[in-house]
Amino acid sequence: MNVLDLRPLTDPDMPIYLQLYWRFRNAIATGKLAPGDRVPSIRSLASEMNLARGTVETSYQMLTSEGYLIARGPAGTVVSPWCDGRIGATPPIELSALPQVHRVRLSEFQPLQLGLPALDAFPRKTWVRLAGRRLRGMNAGDMVSGDPNGYEPLRRAIAAYLAVSRGIACTPEQVFVTAGYRGALELIRHSLLQTGDTGWFEDPGYLHSRRFLEHVGMLLTPVPVDENGIDVEAGQRLAGNARFAVITPTHQSPTGVALSLPRRLALLDWAQAHRAWIIEDDYDSEFRYHGRPLPPLKSLDHSGRVLYAGTFSKVLYPGLRLAYLVVPEKEIGRFRNTIVQLGGSPLFFQAAVADFMEQGHFARHIKKMRSLYATRREYLIRALTQVFDETMQVPDRAGGIHVLAYLKSKLSDAALAAAANADGLAVMALSEWDTRSRSPAGLLMGFANIATPTQALDQVRHLRKIQKSL
Amino acid sequence: MNVLDLRPLTDPDMPIYLQLYWRFRNAIATGKLAPGDRVPSIRSLASEMNLARGTVETSYQMLTSEGYLIARGPAGTVVSPWCDGRIGATPPIELSALPQVHRVRLSEFQPLQLGLPALDAFPRKTWVRLAGRRLRGMNAGDMVSGDPNGYEPLRRAIAAYLAVSRGIACTPEQVFVTAGYRGALELIRHSLLQTGDTGWFEDPGYLHSRRFLEHVGMLLTPVPVDENGIDVEAGQRLAGNARFAVITPTHQSPTGVALSLPRRLALLDWAQAHRAWIIEDDYDSEFRYHGRPLPPLKSLDHSGRVLYAGTFSKVLYPGLRLAYLVVPEKEIGRFRNTIVQLGGSPLFFQAAVADFMEQGHFARHIKKMRSLYATRREYLIRALTQVFDETMQVPDRAGGIHVLAYLKSKLSDAALAAAANADGLAVMALSEWDTRSRSPAGLLMGFANIATPTQALDQVRHLRKIQKSL
Repeated sequence: MNVLDLRPLTDPDMPIYLQLYWRFRNAIATGKLAPGDRVPSIRSLASEMNLARGTVETSYQMLTSEGYLIARGPAGTVVSPWCDGRIGATPPIELSALPQVHRVRLSEFQPLQLGLPALDAFPRKTWVRLAGRRLRGMNAGDMVSGDPNGYEPLRRAIAAYLAVSRGIACTPEQVFVTAGYRGALELIRHSLLQTGDTGWFEDPGYLHSRRFLEHVGMLLTPVPVDENGIDVEAGQRLAGNARFAVITPTHQSPTGVALSLPRRLALLDWAQAHRAWIIEDDYDSEFRYHGRPLPPLKSLDHSGRVLYAGTFSKVLYPGLRLAYLVVPEKEIGRFRNTIVQLGGSPLFFQAAVADFMEQGHFARHIKKMRSLYATRREYLIRALTQVFDETMQVPDRAGGIHVLAYLKSKLSDAALAAAANADGLAVMALSEWDTRSRSPAGLLMGFANIATPTQALDQVRHLRKIQKSL
Repeated sequence: MNVLDLRPLTDPDMPIYLQLYWRFRNAIATGKLAPGDRVPSIRSLASEMNLARGTVETSYQMLTSEGYLIARGPAGTVVSPWCDGRIGATPPIELSALPQVHRVRLSEFQPLQLGLPALDAFPRKTWVRLAGRRLRGMNAGDMVSGDPNGYEPLRRAIAAYLAVSRGIACTPEQVFVTAGYRGALELIRHSLLQTGDTGWFEDPGYLHSRRFLEHVGMLLTPVPVDENGIDVEAGQRLAGNARFAVITPTHQSPTGVALSLPRRLALLDWAQAHRAWIIEDDYDSEFRYHGRPLPPLKSLDHSGRVLYAGTFSKVLYPGLRLAYLVVPEKEIGRFRNTIVQLGGSPLFFQAAVADFMEQGHFARHIKKMRSLYATRREYLIRALTQVFDETMQVPDRAGGIHVLAYLKSKLSDAALAAAANADGLAVMALSEWDTRSRSPAGLLMGFANIATPTQALDQVRHLRKIQKSL
């Protein structure tokens, strides 16, 4: 087995078991491992590469479940015969390619997947009718690139919605429609920030923003999160001169806690004093099941330091890739200049969303989903309590579309999540969202697509079985 | 008139007349200029601000034609009375806001506008049928974010199309679907380049890519263009160690010349020797009216240095914001990692384009447009020859969807273009595309939407009238 590269796995952005998984796939794709070749035993590979046995095992399970490897009992594990044609024909996949690419390719969602709204409850018929009308009415004006700031009636509808639902007073000119939340971050990055600028980032914090911001050259200082949200004092101590702070004040991502009012005010004071920017990621404030939400930072922002980002990914669906950003009045010009350079979003779905909002479907849909999600959340929490007993604890949170469950076991959350992922359950480990912090072991689970109590029980039992097998 | 800011106009990215125009609009919006206020005479403002009279005049014409100013003959020019409510309500527009934002907002295209395909000749009915079918067939899988690389059947169709039409051999895995050409540039920038990297840029060269690349932190070295395209020797002399070169080899943008074969080979040799990247922007190669095109750089690229970008903006329509990038096989992993971070394009129109291509409509449409554009180009060139006589000269070019006409007059092309823009003709001055080069005076005019010889004559006569009035 000297054909497999045994050098250490060093990608800091990917769990070890996935790096190992990709190293195998790469070796198979490039022909270094041929069909029928025997791969080392878990024990010997773990010892040769100085890895935990569980790590190697998880990689092998993924490779086996996807058909790259075949376990032949006492004869050992070999590369599948069918790898020949099918894999040989595809170009070598770089070790660093993220596994997401593969998962997403299935064009399906998986049980407990995070970040998805209830796809079965989307008012598909109304939506198809409105979008269809826009499609058939398409004229020359719709074929040219529209206003890069975003379709004006949509910006107007967003401003009106934010005034009513979030107490944010803004004009349509302050609203920019972007290609998802990442489009909003990109717009901010190129309007206000320089390469190498330092920013506070919640720790644990939203994995994808962190990766994106680091990818585009920002230096992020992890700032601890506790029961009251990001620790603003710690932020000032760690990086008082930061240029920006990325905050999820409503339901902190991933812990779900709300940023306390004193901290909100302290954060705004700090931003004003240091002329720093606050990026308020209000990604799922629509879904709250009890209590009254605190006012968004933007509604308390009297010195024009807050950039407020909302998205249609959770309220409508992620495939739209539509989000929005509200910028301080005096920054409108800078953002306009940037979006002219970067380009805006295609008009078609913007127009359909505008119609959907103007005709009241949007408000109705949110209201329905709020009650549906409260029910589905309950399905999941009940199933977890029933199946896991005291080995799992679910803290009470006021909103969001995922549940964080703390694990009381010696097993690492990463190992459990990896094994669950390999077996088709799209849970995530809380520790994956840590930078420097050491969160207690926990699993993040999306509940929006759990349609019945039975489904919840099935999925949770499946998870429990995987846990016991480790 | 001490309420108008008389400091020098210093935005290097905007013509002076537009900066002045925006300074007035800003002053009106913020109330520094009130309805009924008299503005200085052209002569006195030109002298106070040390500007050419024609510049001030153009700004005044724009402001008057848009209703902000009213000329009262001997009583002078004043701010319109209606500016009160309507302008007062909108937030102040930053001086640096680009005029494009305003023009585009009209959701219409203007005579002679560049970069647009024939909107009247688009097979709207077929398109609406195919997209409508996709819309009605929408399922849960279509609602989640698709493969960030792009919809697989579309990538397959693109690879097949490039093999047949451009002699480019690539696998679907090498193809990445992006949000327009700028999305492709962004993907390259974050996959292969670092802030501050130097690149060759054609001079004159495509304005929008230049602005975008500079905006995202690239340092561009202008490299002169002659009758054989970019001067590769000059590039090596000026910046032999550049990390990349942005090239429009088929029809150089904006001059329309083809990069000669010896230069193509020299460019590839340079890139291989210096491990530099060639960004081949093949934005309109579909439209060629005589002669055989030279092979694209990508088809000659044996060392994996060429990134080939094509777009659907010119072949279908710009509002789609769909383009594609073909990357060398060994770079696939890096690009996948980046696009996972940046996010892909929405699935819906990708699927419609895939259907459009697979069913043969795409090839048919291109064929039809090739002959239509040859005709419409002829309309424009005949009208120019007839109306302008020897004061305008149109060099013979083999393709593209715009015409470059050289001016034989003392008037600067910028002054003529500005006046024409203010009067509704969307021509561009060749000099605006210069960085360090001094191109001869020339106008760029899109002909794709000129439906009849009479329309061509009308538009050209209009242009001639404006020229004579200056």
